[in-house]
Amino acid sequence: MILVLKYGTTKEQTLDLCQWIGSFGVQANPIFGSDTIIVGIVGDTSSIDINTIENDDRIEKVMKVQEPFKKANRKFHPDNTLVKVGNVTIGGKQIVLAAGPCSVESEEQMIDIASKVKQAGATMMRGGAFKPRTSPYAFQGLRAEGLLYMKRARDLTGLPVVSEITNPSQLELFNEYVDIIQVGTRNMQNFELLKELGHCKKAILLKRGFSNTIEELLMSAEYIMSGGNENVILCERGIRTFETATRNTLDISAIPMLKRMSHLPVFVDPSHAGGISWLVEPLSMAALAAGADGLIIEVHNDPKNAWSDGQQSLTPEAFMELTSKLRPLATLLGREI
Amino acid sequence: MILVLKYGTTKEQTLDLCQWIGSFGVQANPIFGSDTIIVGIVGDTSSIDINTIENDDRIEKVMKVQEPFKKANRKFHPDNTLVKVGNVTIGGKQIVLAAGPCSVESEEQMIDIASKVKQAGATMMRGGAFKPRTSPYAFQGLRAEGLLYMKRARDLTGLPVVSEITNPSQLELFNEYVDIIQVGTRNMQNFELLKELGHCKKAILLKRGFSNTIEELLMSAEYIMSGGNENVILCERGIRTFETATRNTLDISAIPMLKRMSHLPVFVDPSHAGGISWLVEPLSMAALAAGADGLIIEVHNDPKNAWSDGQQSLTPEAFMELTSKLRPLATLLGREI
Amino acid sequence: MILVLKYGTTKEQTLDLCQWIGSFGVQANPIFGSDTIIVGIVGDTSSIDINTIENDDRIEKVMKVQEPFKKANRKFHPDNTLVKVGNVTIGGKQIVLAAGPCSVESEEQMIDIASKVKQAGATMMRGGAFKPRTSPYAFQGLRAEGLLYMKRARDLTGLPVVSEITNPSQLELFNEYVDIIQVGTRNMQNFELLKELGHCKKAILLKRGFSNTIEELLMSAEYIMSGGNENVILCERGIRTFETATRNTLDISAIPMLKRMSHLPVFVDPSHAGGISWLVEPLSMAALAAGADGLIIEVHNDPKNAWSDGQQSLTPEAFMELTSKLRPLATLLGREI
Amino acid sequence: MILVLKYGTTKEQTLDLCQWIGSFGVQANPIFGSDTIIVGIVGDTSSIDINTIENDDRIEKVMKVQEPFKKANRKFHPDNTLVKVGNVTIGGKQIVLAAGPCSVESEEQMIDIASKVKQAGATMMRGGAFKPRTSPYAFQGLRAEGLLYMKRARDLTGLPVVSEITNPSQLELFNEYVDIIQVGTRNMQNFELLKELGHCKKAILLKRGFSNTIEELLMSAEYIMSGGNENVILCERGIRTFETATRNTLDISAIPMLKRMSHLPVFVDPSHAGGISWLVEPLSMAALAAGADGLIIEVHNDPKNAWSDGQQSLTPEAFMELTSKLRPLATLLGREI
Repeated sequence: MILVLKYGTTKEQTLDLCQWIGSFGVQANPIFGSDTIIVGIVGDTSSIDINTIENDDRIEKVMKVQEPFKKANRKFHPDNTLVKVGNVTIGGKQIVLAAGPCSVESEEQMIDIASKVKQAGATMMRGGAFKPRTSPYAFQGLRAEGLLYMKRARDLTGLPVVSEITNPSQLELFNEYVDIIQVGTRNMQNFELLKELGHCKKAILLKRGFSNTIEELLMSAEYIMSGGNENVILCERGIRTFETATRNTLDISAIPMLKRMSHLPVFVDPSHAGGISWLVEPLSMAALAAGADGLIIEVHNDPKNAWSDGQQSLTPEAFMELTSKLRPLATLLGREI
Repeated sequence: MILVLKYGTTKEQTLDLCQWIGSFGVQANPIFGSDTIIVGIVGDTSSIDINTIENDDRIEKVMKVQEPFKKANRKFHPDNTLVKVGNVTIGGKQIVLAAGPCSVESEEQMIDIASKVKQAGATMMRGGAFKPRTSPYAFQGLRAEGLLYMKRARDLTGLPVVSEITNPSQLELFNEYVDIIQVGTRNMQNFELLKELGHCKKAILLKRGFSNTIEELLMSAEYIMSGGNENVILCERGIRTFETATRNTLDISAIPMLKRMSHLPVFVDPSHAGGISWLVEPLSMAALAAGADGLIIEVHNDPKNAWSDGQQSLTPEAFMELTSKLRPLATLLGREI
Repeated sequence: MILVLKYGTTKEQTLDLCQWIGSFGVQANPIFGSDTIIVGIVGDTSSIDINTIENDDRIEKVMKVQEPFKKANRKFHPDNTLVKVGNVTIGGKQIVLAAGPCSVESEEQMIDIASKVKQAGATMMRGGAFKPRTSPYAFQGLRAEGLLYMKRARDLTGLPVVSEITNPSQLELFNEYVDIIQVGTRNMQNFELLKELGHCKKAILLKRGFSNTIEELLMSAEYIMSGGNENVILCERGIRTFETATRNTLDISAIPMLKRMSHLPVFVDPSHAGGISWLVEPLSMAALAAGADGLIIEVHNDPKNAWSDGQQSLTPEAFMELTSKLRPLATLLGREI
Repeated sequence: MILVLKYGTTKEQTLDLCQWIGSFGVQANPIFGSDTIIVGIVGDTSSIDINTIENDDRIEKVMKVQEPFKKANRKFHPDNTLVKVGNVTIGGKQIVLAAGPCSVESEEQMIDIASKVKQAGATMMRGGAFKPRTSPYAFQGLRAEGLLYMKRARDLTGLPVVSEITNPSQLELFNEYVDIIQVGTRNMQNFELLKELGHCKKAILLKRGFSNTIEELLMSAEYIMSGGNENVILCERGIRTFETATRNTLDISAIPMLKRMSHLPVFVDPSHAGGISWLVEPLSMAALAAGADGLIIEVHNDPKNAWSDGQQSLTPEAFMELTSKLRPLATLLGREI
């Protein structure tokens, strides 16, 4: 931690300040410049409340030096984390494809889509049962019934199920029916939910909030990990910017940046990032080329009649065509689908 | 709703499309331009899923004409909504000041601050018991204990209590101890929580998500109102932009814009918007001048030793000085404190 | 300047690094923490190219401690700068109002508007002659002719003229016809233009780029001031954010922040910030309450038929009404109009 | 163009309005809904000033239907534009690599870098002579001398030269020494400069402003094209968002979006987008995978001692390694390097 002192602070005031800070069990080293005095603090600064210091009259600003996340930090865990779900390993050589509808609509639909995306190369199935919708008047999902339909599709196809949780009270249900619990973009900083997920044993797909920084995403992973659950998969799904031509702006740089800062696997959701079906292919190709470990893609048997997000869903045929393009790219990159 | 058809769509295709859309119980009127064909849809378009239409091959884009919020819309409710809490009326002539610490720390502290801010002109007390913190390693609030301390301070001072809820499971507790339930910026789109709040009878202070649009804020109000609870107070608290000199960017225009679009009262939180105590005064003055109905301000007896957000808290003395400046401004604006 | 060294850097490597940095004529002080080593650099760091250092293999990141602007910095110039133009003093007790059309359209129009806004309390006249328009097919301004018309209006009313320059080659013309040269939002980082303006003697109204930070605005002021022209007026005019309900987001906090960081006067342009005429009043009130030294407002005799920006222009009557509200507010704030 | 009328407008007022709008030579078709009346306007709406209409008391909002750019629009020019510079064709099968230093520093340096990047697969050379720098105290480029050094490197290597112009007055110089004139991110809306470039015959590399939309980029291309110069290459180089972990946020979706909306070639600048050398490879890979026609990359013989942007520059060796990875990717995509 670095303190920049206010212009005009005297040497005596500085030494006083350093002594006071020393009382928190850290070491404060003043450096006297011509215009500016700075104080470098070393030791276990996590025990200091930054506010206590920031409020001191002699201090202009406090600059953090260390990243605030520990368990998610590659510095202290150089090897890639591998998350195993059924017979799928996430974060290794295999590029994992999860595919399925935005909203689960019926048992037949889920079985149909699951078997088709499996054939095309998907090794996981996605589907929404509890839907967070901007409008109270929009379809809110089949809820528990939707999870049940996905479970049946899993029993038939063997594909593990990813689905989004929206309330800590649903956890029992998710523990029973779902293989990977997804935290949606609007819940990335629902800390009450994150704490609960830290105590469960399921793998967690943690989507980046559409206006959260990379550091905040890693802090949310830290919430889950510090509770005891280290099976976290990060997911970039586009951020909110001034640009309105696309639904969101896919932050492609976040992929290599997250892989460097953290040891956790990184997924990309090209369907929500672009918001339109014809963008799924170029964004999926780009995500793989940038180092993503997996993709989560909306596939619907009949996008025109989908109950939600039809405009960004692929048909099973389009998904098949997509995987036929992704496969040689994966090979070129030393990976496989 | 307006449909813009793809370049090259024929007249016959257009008429076909209009017939199909007519089957949803609305009227579709084509307008043939030189380059572009547009179709205007009138009638109850809320029954049409926008995706169904957006996916049609003939359609380039769909433009919404009507605002998607009804109950929060001033068009259908021209008079200001007045929210009454105890003997305080929000949204009327009086500018309501809610003040108190970021985190409740002890019973003595709450009583001390509450009595001081009351003396300075506050008519409500704020305080955090369940704290949503970015880091799992930061203080998470006194939880139920914190609510109890606020209740005691209310019993002594008569000031109604505003506090933030973070989980639907806390609702019983809040129904008992709190007068206005605050939905924090990170929970503005926690729809499960909003639905629950729609079924309770308490007034709700709904803070704008730091990256949510004005329309999304009104849609979240709509969630609560459509559940049956129309006592909603909107709160602008700064948005996330590229500027880093301030903690957030106070969207001052949102105040007159919300007052025009909606009949609900509008509060401003200058403490979180600026993130630093010396900005509270100019931002509070600006908020009143722009038409705010109330302010929610962080006041701490000892900001240097506050357990959270000390750098943006005022001392009770500074709050007293602030209100002495706000009072004549309120009078000039035809209101009162 | 602070260097944070890479995890794993040894003590020997650190001392080597400090010695190398010392060779630039500054002093490098290492501080050894448990996880992290930091190096504080003091002395005249402006002589070091930050890249030279940032590229060193041992360095994780470089953090700047000092603000990079000197002449615009209040630290080294505690008193407010007063800019005098004719008999108007900007940055003192008087709140200065500049008003006029987006585009100059004719001599009669300018004379008509100038005399009316003068009556209402404006002490300067604004008008666009060289118009930067997003579309090549839109009206581009009357150019030199427009400046001439403004000069005539000045001769009759005595109001100094503010107008926007868009090319260094126009400087001769502006030196002759204009009293305050405006740098528009799209030219805030047109450094070639800024350098030229540093060599002229006219006051400069420097508008903030719609996506530039407060620090970048002050760096652009620094360009002009370091060339020898210290008569710079800063102008906040709204920034680009994700919100689309208003044309731009007025960064109200920028007013007190700029006043604190710099000694230069600060104007606000509520017309461009809101983009719609009914927002001009609340934003003007808020700007004054937050500490602005002046306002620049679009006024048009016939907004419906204005050649540009009519939707955000006030009529002279509406401007008169506005000033009748601003005047008592100015008095309350200890200032005058 | 669509008009949404204010709530409460009568049928008679609507018909009046339509008649008035018809007087501009277009056809106005009213559609009467239950809550809302909309008016569809067809015909040549470019002759109508949107403000004239937007200011009418009966109108709530005006929605544009047609894209405002014509010459840059793929709708009216379905085939890809090929820009030919020397023996390099841009926008065809070949992926074009332009490489070189941020700032030209000496003749020897340019010759050295140019010959090395040519060997590695670059077919164009980039270098900055006129440097737009945020600080007036930073190195401003060798100016004319820099262009001369690049010309000499071209004479020896045959590589065409790309360099940035910052002032219309430099055009004569650029016409003589440079093959592709670059418009930098800060000048994308320097309309005076764009107009001048419309009258020259050189190819123009138009970089997206860091806060400009895709539509605004195409409107700036339209400025140049409407002046008579259709040799425009678009360049995505990262946009400004709330994320600070990278220098800018590469808008990867802009590549397929620009290719769909326009027929012009699209380049990507991974060096400025990421702002750090190790990000150049993943971003370059992603850019190609998303459909880019070329890359412009900073390469410096000695990044540690570069006069600007060293932290984001590759060494010639690293550039060689990069092209060895890009080449098989290009082949996989049906293109070549």
